[in-house]
Formats: sequence, structure tokens, C-alpha cells
Amino acid sequence: MSFLSELRRTASDVVTDPQVLTGYSFDQMPLGTAGTPLALVRAGSVAEVSAVLALASAHRVPVVTRGAGSGLAGGANAVDGGIVLSVAGMDAILSIDEGLRTATVQCGVLGGDLAVAVAERGLWYPPDPASKAFSTIGGNIATNAGGGCCLKYGVTGDHVAALTAVLASGEVIRTGGRQRKNVAGLDLTRLLVGSEGTLAVIVEATLRLRAAPLPPATLVAFFGTVQDAAEAVDAIEARGEPSLLELMDRTTVGAVERATRMGLDTDAGALLIVQTDEPDPAAALRSYAEACAKATDLAHTTDPAEGEQFLAARRQALPALERLGSTLLDDVAVPRTALAEMITEIQVIAERYAVTIGTFGHAGDGNLHPTIVFTPDTEAAARAAFVDIVHAALTLGGTITGEHGVGTLKTPYLTAMVGPVERALMGRIKEAFDPAGVLNPGKAL
Amino acid sequence: MSFLSELRRTASDVVTDPQVLTGYSFDQMPLGTAGTPLALVRAGSVAEVSAVLALASAHRVPVVTRGAGSGLAGGANAVDGGIVLSVAGMDAILSIDEGLRTATVQCGVLGGDLAVAVAERGLWYPPDPASKAFSTIGGNIATNAGGGCCLKYGVTGDHVAALTAVLASGEVIRTGGRQRKNVAGLDLTRLLVGSEGTLAVIVEATLRLRAAPLPPATLVAFFGTVQDAAEAVDAIEARGEPSLLELMDRTTVGAVERATRMGLDTDAGALLIVQTDEPDPAAALRSYAEACAKATDLAHTTDPAEGEQFLAARRQALPALERLGSTLLDDVAVPRTALAEMITEIQVIAERYAVTIGTFGHAGDGNLHPTIVFTPDTEAAARAAFVDIVHAALTLGGTITGEHGVGTLKTPYLTAMVGPVERALMGRIKEAFDPAGVLNPGKAL
Repeated sequence: MSFLSELRRTASDVVTDPQVLTGYSFDQMPLGTAGTPLALVRAGSVAEVSAVLALASAHRVPVVTRGAGSGLAGGANAVDGGIVLSVAGMDAILSIDEGLRTATVQCGVLGGDLAVAVAERGLWYPPDPASKAFSTIGGNIATNAGGGCCLKYGVTGDHVAALTAVLASGEVIRTGGRQRKNVAGLDLTRLLVGSEGTLAVIVEATLRLRAAPLPPATLVAFFGTVQDAAEAVDAIEARGEPSLLELMDRTTVGAVERATRMGLDTDAGALLIVQTDEPDPAAALRSYAEACAKATDLAHTTDPAEGEQFLAARRQALPALERLGSTLLDDVAVPRTALAEMITEIQVIAERYAVTIGTFGHAGDGNLHPTIVFTPDTEAAARAAFVDIVHAALTLGGTITGEHGVGTLKTPYLTAMVGPVERALMGRIKEAFDPAGVLNPGKAL
Repeated sequence: MSFLSELRRTASDVVTDPQVLTGYSFDQMPLGTAGTPLALVRAGSVAEVSAVLALASAHRVPVVTRGAGSGLAGGANAVDGGIVLSVAGMDAILSIDEGLRTATVQCGVLGGDLAVAVAERGLWYPPDPASKAFSTIGGNIATNAGGGCCLKYGVTGDHVAALTAVLASGEVIRTGGRQRKNVAGLDLTRLLVGSEGTLAVIVEATLRLRAAPLPPATLVAFFGTVQDAAEAVDAIEARGEPSLLELMDRTTVGAVERATRMGLDTDAGALLIVQTDEPDPAAALRSYAEACAKATDLAHTTDPAEGEQFLAARRQALPALERLGSTLLDDVAVPRTALAEMITEIQVIAERYAVTIGTFGHAGDGNLHPTIVFTPDTEAAARAAFVDIVHAALTLGGTITGEHGVGTLKTPYLTAMVGPVERALMGRIKEAFDPAGVLNPGKAL
């Protein structure tokens, strides 16, 4: 019996229509390439995931697990002759424990749907990647997704209490637990977080929730230079715990103003948006305003709706830059105190390759998304600039990816990032989980 | 050349005096057994650790790494024919970065010494195991040590940004980094945290610091029953973020009162001690007092010195119980909402074996330290009660160890805790780090 026949006996929803397969072969990474998969399996249960993985391991057929396909690093791109295993349909919220403040969900639940469900109980799931409305919790865990509020509340991994995952062998493992403290055995939960589908298929998660935060108060500050803005970032961080601290550089501010005509100061070298949910918002805003000593213009509000309007500029950053041409979105993070140096270096790189690069991102944790705008004529220059940005982050003691993942996009830089001994060790850990090497081969590690 | 001769050429401080070796063969676990080591090596540098491990791997000689020897689970107990590798002498604070709020330290630095050093800069390293004054940061990381304030601020692992560690091969690895967000490769940092010396020897750590907290305000509440106290714990947690939430049961309160004559109500079924460092301490105390609706007696203060006097009762819990006989200190954690059930079950177990068990601990995160008091005549009963307590925690969905580690004490229960497939997987991960199996064999995994 052929592998495909066996697969059809193993899983109920197996698709080989090339057109459908193409739609399931790419994530949202620009400039990506993907292999031609053998089949798509839309899994409906843990048992089905288990059976498919056992079969794939026995036949050494690659398996690329896929949630919503909203990744930005090619982690979910198909590989030749492999299975695309979609777990998007496993999307039930299994339980919400109000006393313990946990939610147990299947991997395909969308972050936005979880947010609504827990908000009805006065609870809050903090991780807020920009893709929240359309990305899955399983994908968020597999990439350890960040967002704006992780500055104060931590990234996705900080909110994962327990996981159910399927090994390549088909064996089901359970990690972590509902108790807050646990030091029994190795921390498999944290090892699976951010492993990008290379170690196991995450099928269920128990997530830690918090009480809903106080309504945010918001401050917007314009600065003459990136250096002045970066100084303000450090000063703000020294004064309190902002719940959001975002930056846009001159190029990004200009693009947003052209797209929206919202009246931004396009002469500014940088714009900061700060939010606080501290108990005395007026006092916090005053303190943060003082920290922006060199600001050329300041506005603030304790009205959440007005604050949301201020934030609209930041939310328009990527769409506005996309209006200027094709874009290559990078994701690097540096120690916060190297922020100004990193942005300056990006500006030097933009000049070196004569490309437009708009830089925005989560300034409070040093995580930037330099976005290179290019045309078919300047694609090679854009790619070269991308490489230089990654190396600049490494030179400043930073990382090649702060929150998007390695996927296929960043694998060329992984050894430079983690070191050869460490990368070899990661390879051996991968073998401990997946001896046949079927799970997302060639990605992330 | 004999192994010992080679070892003497490799390391500068090699001791084989049996009396000295005995002093380095046990940690603080009661009732423990330990092997007879071949030699003690007091390492002075990363290079020396590396050379010793490479030699040990080549000769398949076991290595038990040891900080201050303050562990409570036998994790640092010597094994027959092995090396005891003391890294306590590697105790330099290498740097403190006030801007990024990080400290980089060698593994042998004592938590208390770090606390003093960072406090001089207005900074704070939150993890506060009871052993803080005399346990090492390396040991705290190896056991993922907890303490009282981790309820609000997280356990040791939540404060580790980067590690330098030596593999069994002698290769040096560096994990993590100074940037706050990083999703490049597998999370080796978190894998090493809590690995109890079985994966690698942690030699340096970069730790995240915070701004010093506001002075604590303190509430003490007595309750007629453990159930009433546990209800109050849940109610307090629903109202805010206490920085400390400790419980003592009737047996413990009685023991402390007999030892100290501080005037505790020995008729009480349980005592809670709550601290807050929230911005409006008076309001927080009022709210928490309301949450203690069934309290039979309440006292509170915003004066930190007076609060420290209230806390003295909790600090005296273990010493007071130790005055009653030999003690076997357990460490289990359950989901917080199962706290009352767990304490009640411990009381049933105490009656079953006719032993005294005083239960106290970190109620806010469900982490309890039932302490079994015994005499030579009742040692067997004490051991049986210990086993039943561990199984009771498992039955309630809890863990066999919340913050002390598995060591040798809890290995019999590890498979029941993590599951057979998961334990086998942990064994394969161990092999990925330490193929010769020399690092702390028989412990933790």
C-alpha cells in the first residue's frame, strides 16, 4: 500500500489537490520559497495527529505543522514531498478556571477569540502579537510570540503553564501543570515554547490569565533625533513600568502621515508612544512626560479611546510602508541601551544600499522591525541590507529574531547567533524528540 | 597514569582527605545517604571546570557539582568513586548594568551578597529562598529556587537572562542574552534552570534585576479553620497582587508560640501573613482585610519594621518544629484552589501514622512544606507519611516538588509525576548534553 493510501486510512481529511496545497504551502514571509508537499492533512483530534505522526516517522516523510499560516519567517512553509499538517481546525476553548486564572485551549484557537472569551469573565490573556486577531495560540507558542504589552507582562512563553504535545513517534506528552511552582524534571514546557514545530506538535495548552488591567493612559512624544528618543526610553524605564513603549523613526512617521494625514510632525526624528496601566495614570503620565525632557512636542490622555487614536499611528506603520513598494520586514532585538546605536546603524545601511528602511517597534524591550521597501529593481539591494541589519544586531549583542522566529528566513544566521557548540547541542536535543527528523526539517534549528 | 594523578595535573585544588570529603558529601537533606567520593576539586575558573569535566567524561568518572551544599533534596550528595566539584569559590560579581538592570555573576556568589551589591545601586534581585543568605546563585538556578516573593515576582528562572555553562565534554556554552526578547533557537537557558547539575555545570549567569520595591505593608490574620484561611487566600488573590502570602497551620502556630512566646493565638486553625508593595498600601491592606471575612483576629501595619516582626513567626516555623524532634521537610505544590484539601489530607496522614506534621508555606502559589516531626522510634512512620503526602499532592493535580528539587529524595516519584514517556524523553535530552552520563548520575531525572 502506498504511503498516501495509508495516510488516507489514518486521517479523515487528506487533500492532494495542487491548488489547495499551494494555499497551504506558504506563511506570510515575503520573498519566501516553499517546497511542493505531497498532501495536506486537516487534523481534527489529538488521536489523529498522533496517528499521522507515527505513520510519517515510520516512512520518514516530513511533516510541517501549520496553524493560521500567519508566521513571518517561513516556519510553516511546506517542504518537498512532505505532509502539511493543519491543526487550525482544533479550535475549542476547553475550559476557563476563574479561580486559578487559567484557560485550557486547543492549539487552533485564535488569540483574539481567547481574549473575548476570557474578557467575559473579567480576565485577560496578555500576549498581544499584531496578528492576535488571526493567529493561533499554538502558533504563538511555537514562535514564542511577543507584542507590545510583553514589555510589562512578558511574552507568550511566560503565560504557558502546561502543554499537551505529540512527539514524532506519535506518543503524546504532557508538560507542566496547573500549580504555579514545579521543579520536577526538566522544563519541557519552555523547551517546546519557541521550537517552531521542530520538536513536537503542540495540540493543547493551559495558559495563565490575569485580572483585566486598568484602562490605559497614553503619551505621545516627538523628538528631533532618534538619540533623544532613545534617551527618553531609558529614562521612562527607569521611572516605572509602562505597559507599552513603541517607537517609530522619521521614515515611518513620514509614511504614516502620507497614508493617513493624521497630522503627525514629519520633521520629527522619532516618535514614541507610551502607555501605562499603573494605578495613578495622571501621575505616571507626568513622570513619563518629564522623562521626555528633549521632546519637541508632547500629547497625552487618560481617555482610552483617545489613546487608541494615538496608537493608530503605530498600527499603521507597516501598512503605510507597504504602500511605498514591496517590503521586507525584519525582526531584531538589542539590549535596550543599544537602541539608538542600532537605529543609527540601520540608517547607515539604508544609505549604503540606497533603499528606504522604515524602523518601528517595541522600543521598551529593544525589539525593532526595520522594514525595507524595494521594487523589483532594488530587490538585491534590499536583501543585502537585510543581511547587514541582522549582522548589526549581532554586533550590538542582540538577537537575529526577537519575536518572529527563525523559520527559513533566519537559519543562515543561527550559528553566528547561538554559537556552533550550542547549535550542535540543539541538533542533538532535536534528535531526542524526533529521531527520524521528520518534524519541520530544515527550519529553525 | 592513574585518573587521580591526571586529575591533580588538571586542577590545582584536589583533596582526597576522607574527613574533608565527608564534609563535602552531603547537602542539607535529612535522612540522606551519600556515596564515598574519590576526590574533591575546588574549581577556581571556567577553564578548570572545563578541563575537569573533559577528563571525567573521558574516564567516565561521575561528577557531582556543589555550591553551598544548602540543598534540601540530596541533589549535591556525593556518589561512589566520583568527583565532588565545588564551584563555591567562583564567587565574583562580574558586573552590574544599571541601565539594563542586569547583574552578571559567577555561580558561587551568595544570593545575600548579590542582594546587598545591587541594593547599593537602588536595584533588587527578587528571588528570596529562605537560604538566600547562604545559598549560591548557581545552586538557586540549578534548582530553580523559589521563596516568598515569587508569588508576585516569579521564581529564579524568571530572572535568568543568560548563562555560561560547561558541558560534560568540557565545551563551554553560552545561552540567552542581554536583550529582553529572543526567539533564536531552543531555549537552553530555561532547560538548564532546574536541571540540578545533570545537564551541565552552570558557571556564570546574567540575572534580571528590578527597581527596589516600595516598603511592604503587612497583614496577619488568624482563622478558625484551614478552610476559612484557604478561602481568604483565594479572595486575596482575586483582589490584587500581594507580594507575599504565607500560611501556617495549627501545629506550626503552636510550635512557634511554644518556642517564642510571641503571643500567637494557639487556638487558631491557621494563620495567614500577607504583604503588599502596591502603591497605596493602606487601601491594599483594607481590601485584603475584607477578603479575610472569616478571620477570628486581624492585625496590620504599614510600618516595615513592625511587618518584619509579624513575619518572624513565619521565619520561626521550621526552627520551632525542629525543637520538637528530628524533622523531615517536604515540599509539594498544588493548584492554589486545592490548598485546603491538601492541608486537610496532610492532617489525615498525620493521624494515620500518629506523627506530628506542621504545615506551612507559600499559600499564594499553593506551595506547602509539610514538616514531619519524628523520633528514632517513629522514623518509619515519618517516612511512610512523607510518601503519602507526595502521593496526595499528585492526586490533587500538584507536583512532587515545588521549589526544592528532585535530587535523590524525590526520584522514586518522578515517573508518577511526569509520566513514563516524558521521563524517557528527559533521559534522551540528558544524553544530548552528557553522553557519558557523568553529570550527577542517579539524581533528578
